[in-house]
Amino acid sequence: MKVILNFTVVPIGVGTSLSRYVAACERILSKRGLKHTLHANGTNVEGDWDEVFSAIKECHQTLHRMGVPRIHTGIQLGTRIDREQSLEDKVQSVRDKLTQ
Amino acid sequence: MKVILNFTVVPIGVGTSLSRYVAACERILSKRGLKHTLHANGTNVEGDWDEVFSAIKECHQTLHRMGVPRIHTGIQLGTRIDREQSLEDKVQSVRDKLTQ
Amino acid sequence: MKVILNFTVVPIGVGTSLSRYVAACERILSKRGLKHTLHANGTNVEGDWDEVFSAIKECHQTLHRMGVPRIHTGIQLGTRIDREQSLEDKVQSVRDKLTQ
Amino acid sequence: MKVILNFTVVPIGVGTSLSRYVAACERILSKRGLKHTLHANGTNVEGDWDEVFSAIKECHQTLHRMGVPRIHTGIQLGTRIDREQSLEDKVQSVRDKLTQ
Repeated sequence: MKVILNFTVVPIGVGTSLSRYVAACERILSKRGLKHTLHANGTNVEGDWDEVFSAIKECHQTLHRMGVPRIHTGIQLGTRIDREQSLEDKVQSVRDKLTQ
Repeated sequence: MKVILNFTVVPIGVGTSLSRYVAACERILSKRGLKHTLHANGTNVEGDWDEVFSAIKECHQTLHRMGVPRIHTGIQLGTRIDREQSLEDKVQSVRDKLTQ
Repeated sequence: MKVILNFTVVPIGVGTSLSRYVAACERILSKRGLKHTLHANGTNVEGDWDEVFSAIKECHQTLHRMGVPRIHTGIQLGTRIDREQSLEDKVQSVRDKLTQ
Repeated sequence: MKVILNFTVVPIGVGTSLSRYVAACERILSKRGLKHTLHANGTNVEGDWDEVFSAIKECHQTLHRMGVPRIHTGIQLGTRIDREQSLEDKVQSVRDKLTQ
């Protein structure tokens, strides 16, 4: 089962500068070869359900090893069986409507 | 790694009455023996990371088999290594502050 | 326009004990007479759109005044024009399906 | 009070093709002159708290007028008083860490 999701990692208890922790998660996604796009409020990922959630789990494990005592993560995910769709398709579909 | 999370399943393309699909997810959590609490905007779950996410995956698979073409799910999750905490602890901790 | 929502406040930069900040938000909801229910991963609120979002804004302002330098908040909200629904209706609707 | 947020609108009860509704929300943000960026799982917005939430409210009102009976929206938002930050700053901050 394929999933498209956004996840937003919020490390708690390590001050207010969080970008190095987001970068650590980006590296995990890249290392695993998962298609992903960073944006201002999280990271979009597209891939097999198990592979994507395994990467998010590794992200939590890695951040805890980096010394983060508590992590809050928000995920917005979608699965569909009516048709194939990619990260790019979702954006293009809206853009098409905007130019009609 | 233990996780405490809320998940909110939004079936798309099956009209506006969604409670039978939420009920199907509740049954999956009960069948698997996962500690969970239904509330007005989702379901709180506490348990091992892999078991909890495996249940959410089964929920998506089950709903698609029930005929739901597209599913949006929101998840808010927390992990921590500084101390043990349960679903009840989280609520009680706030209640204690309210009565101080 | 009526809204039913969950919101989850995550204060950043004040350590890992967050319940006093959640309690401050609960007090704001109570003071304003908004119907709300605390749960393990957030607070459910029901009310007029403007009143509910004004309360969440006051929550952010209050927490910043309490010394929280950065706040992340997740909100899951619903509006509907097909029928009336309350926080209790949403839970009961699922419970009904579970006992059928 | 400035806010940076992502919001993801999920129209319910109008089938599985949702891009025209997302496009309607994009037009509202553009019309109001709010800085925003569409991505695969939502739209990032930066601006004054009241203006941003007023736009999201208009989005719900507009979609209901377009015939959407029920709408679920997820919002992930941040406010901070420790320093100024823009949508671009948030992405650049992570990119800087990735190239170090």
